[in-house]
Amino acid sequence: MKFLCSQSDLNSNLSLVSRAVPSRPTHPILANVLVVADSQKNRVSLTAFDLSLGIETSFSADVSEDGKITLPAKLLNDIVSRLPEGEITLMVEEDEDSESQIVALKSASGQFQVRAMDAEEFPPLPTVEEGESLQLPIVMLTEGLKGALFAASSDETKQILTGVHLTGTPDSLEFAATDGHRLSVVETSLSPETDEEADEKEKIPEMPNLEGFAVTIPARALRELERIIGNRSESDTIALQVDEAQVVFQLGYQRLTVRKLDGAYPNYEMLIPQQFTRSVCLERKRLLSSLERVAVLADQKNNLVKCTFSHEEGQVSLSVETQDLGSAKESMPAEVTGESGEIAFNVKYLMDGLKALPTKDIKMQLNEGNQPVIFNPLGGLQMTYLVMPVQIVK
Amino acid sequence: MKFLCSQSDLNSNLSLVSRAVPSRPTHPILANVLVVADSQKNRVSLTAFDLSLGIETSFSADVSEDGKITLPAKLLNDIVSRLPEGEITLMVEEDEDSESQIVALKSASGQFQVRAMDAEEFPPLPTVEEGESLQLPIVMLTEGLKGALFAASSDETKQILTGVHLTGTPDSLEFAATDGHRLSVVETSLSPETDEEADEKEKIPEMPNLEGFAVTIPARALRELERIIGNRSESDTIALQVDEAQVVFQLGYQRLTVRKLDGAYPNYEMLIPQQFTRSVCLERKRLLSSLERVAVLADQKNNLVKCTFSHEEGQVSLSVETQDLGSAKESMPAEVTGESGEIAFNVKYLMDGLKALPTKDIKMQLNEGNQPVIFNPLGGLQMTYLVMPVQIVK
Repeated sequence: MKFLCSQSDLNSNLSLVSRAVPSRPTHPILANVLVVADSQKNRVSLTAFDLSLGIETSFSADVSEDGKITLPAKLLNDIVSRLPEGEITLMVEEDEDSESQIVALKSASGQFQVRAMDAEEFPPLPTVEEGESLQLPIVMLTEGLKGALFAASSDETKQILTGVHLTGTPDSLEFAATDGHRLSVVETSLSPETDEEADEKEKIPEMPNLEGFAVTIPARALRELERIIGNRSESDTIALQVDEAQVVFQLGYQRLTVRKLDGAYPNYEMLIPQQFTRSVCLERKRLLSSLERVAVLADQKNNLVKCTFSHEEGQVSLSVETQDLGSAKESMPAEVTGESGEIAFNVKYLMDGLKALPTKDIKMQLNEGNQPVIFNPLGGLQMTYLVMPVQIVK
Repeated sequence: MKFLCSQSDLNSNLSLVSRAVPSRPTHPILANVLVVADSQKNRVSLTAFDLSLGIETSFSADVSEDGKITLPAKLLNDIVSRLPEGEITLMVEEDEDSESQIVALKSASGQFQVRAMDAEEFPPLPTVEEGESLQLPIVMLTEGLKGALFAASSDETKQILTGVHLTGTPDSLEFAATDGHRLSVVETSLSPETDEEADEKEKIPEMPNLEGFAVTIPARALRELERIIGNRSESDTIALQVDEAQVVFQLGYQRLTVRKLDGAYPNYEMLIPQQFTRSVCLERKRLLSSLERVAVLADQKNNLVKCTFSHEEGQVSLSVETQDLGSAKESMPAEVTGESGEIAFNVKYLMDGLKALPTKDIKMQLNEGNQPVIFNPLGGLQMTYLVMPVQIVK
């Protein structure tokens, strides 16, 4: 194998696939990146795979000799990222003394020799044979991930809850995530809602029919997907293929493969109350910055903040009281419908949801006592954030 | 006590003194900041002190009631840094239920009540009674600290080596630091060296006579001093007072007090060879970036890099060889005087010194075998960086 490429191409593509290299590989080969050079296409592809998540990418290079090899991903990344801009030659050299292969990496500043492992040992990325691929508008994925991803559980023992559940209808795609304490549901669609938007319809990619589509995808893989689509135009589409076991996203020369999460996703729709006796409309950022301040005093154990809303005064007050440190109280104007009252939250869950809600103003809806409270954006995206309140000990 | 001030004044001054709050206080009061309000001067002063390093600062405020109190530094900092810009009122309230005092902090967004401790419990900052204060040009301090501070030991058991040693002559001030493996010495002076500089002499502050001056100051305190003088004009001066036990720096309303390090500082002058058989001149940044790359392969244990210099080829080569990972070799042009040869270094020590050297080109001077190697800037500041080489095992 021998090819010549630019430092910036090799560097950016290595950084991308390195995200799928496990930090504690179960087998030495998984700490490596697979490098394949194709002289016909004049392209070099890089692949990393942790047996669940796999990322593959390719870039153009001047390939003078076909071949494949694997190299230690971290070491290669550390070297290439420090090389000056310019051309790099990468070639396999036979090591006469031992059975292992050596890859030489030459740049204007000098030469590195890195011990390689055979490409045959590298596990192949799973492919999806059957089924057609869906063309998903990137704007839908961006919105859905931004609104739901944060609510997935980071506790690996919680299995299905470490993923985001995607459900399709003929004209929308719903993203849902919950860790058992809170739930975020985003419904994305491309139906233009105003005449103005309708005029722009031509620019918007066509919406595929997603009826019956349902899959739970690990949040970790979706965070990498978010990174990959981050600097793409929202009018692009990404190809999605799903079979019994795998989900594959393909965007240009970049492919992300991930094993689906097995099991039935909780029936979250039934958790969301359909009727509320009270509602409070207020400014999102104002509420968020007040919470950030009063949270300084919130007990590290229960993180409790009390939220008092008054119909008569047209305001919401947040308060925290501690035995040792002191107390905090902030108030802000709000439009309160229904009876005045108070409720308590875990301040962390509340802040997480407020950060993800996309609009200037939001609506909080609740019933008596310890029933779930929901937050919606006022205008814009269809999103529901549900939090369980914490009982106030009198 | 009661005063009104701006959020930005309180915030920036709190951040400054908080640097002297110990992370694990030996007594609860040391986790606090002392707040003193003076209605005559209409100023509020803040003080933090870890029994070795103390920082005091003051800012103008609308003081309606004199008084002093101490408040938990981290908590106060966390609250004030999150408050919106605008006016803040701080006042002591008597707590009827308990013997402790409560401080109320009011801003446009709400009110915080923080439990306070009595100011009488706060240990007074040491003062320097005797001796006149020296007016040190800030430019000298900046240069001296930048070139020497990094070489001090971070191992608290090494006592005197955790400081920087300052020595005065009639027209210069020398900064030296060593951790036993390497030594950095910077001689700063204000004598203009060229006619052009002589014309600008009026702008340069006058140099005090520092003959006989010698003190070892903890590196930790000098890092805080570096931060304090960081955004001041280089033509400013800072007042320095020293007695048997303490060093005090005063700059405007900011005062830094620190306990001197006791004991005799090593006689480092005798470590620096006066004659060399060989010298190598080369580009500093080129050498540094090559080192950064080959260091990727350097063994984590000994961090060894081999440096080969050739008089005939007019170049320096850096190389690293490892058993497991591979090897690296980079070369760059250099002006080699004397015999060709090779020498090995701990790459970390070499990089630290190269980062601190201030000029484009540098000179490395050495003798045979395992004698100390020194690095000097070519032109500009008087600086000597000494490193012990590592023996090459053949």
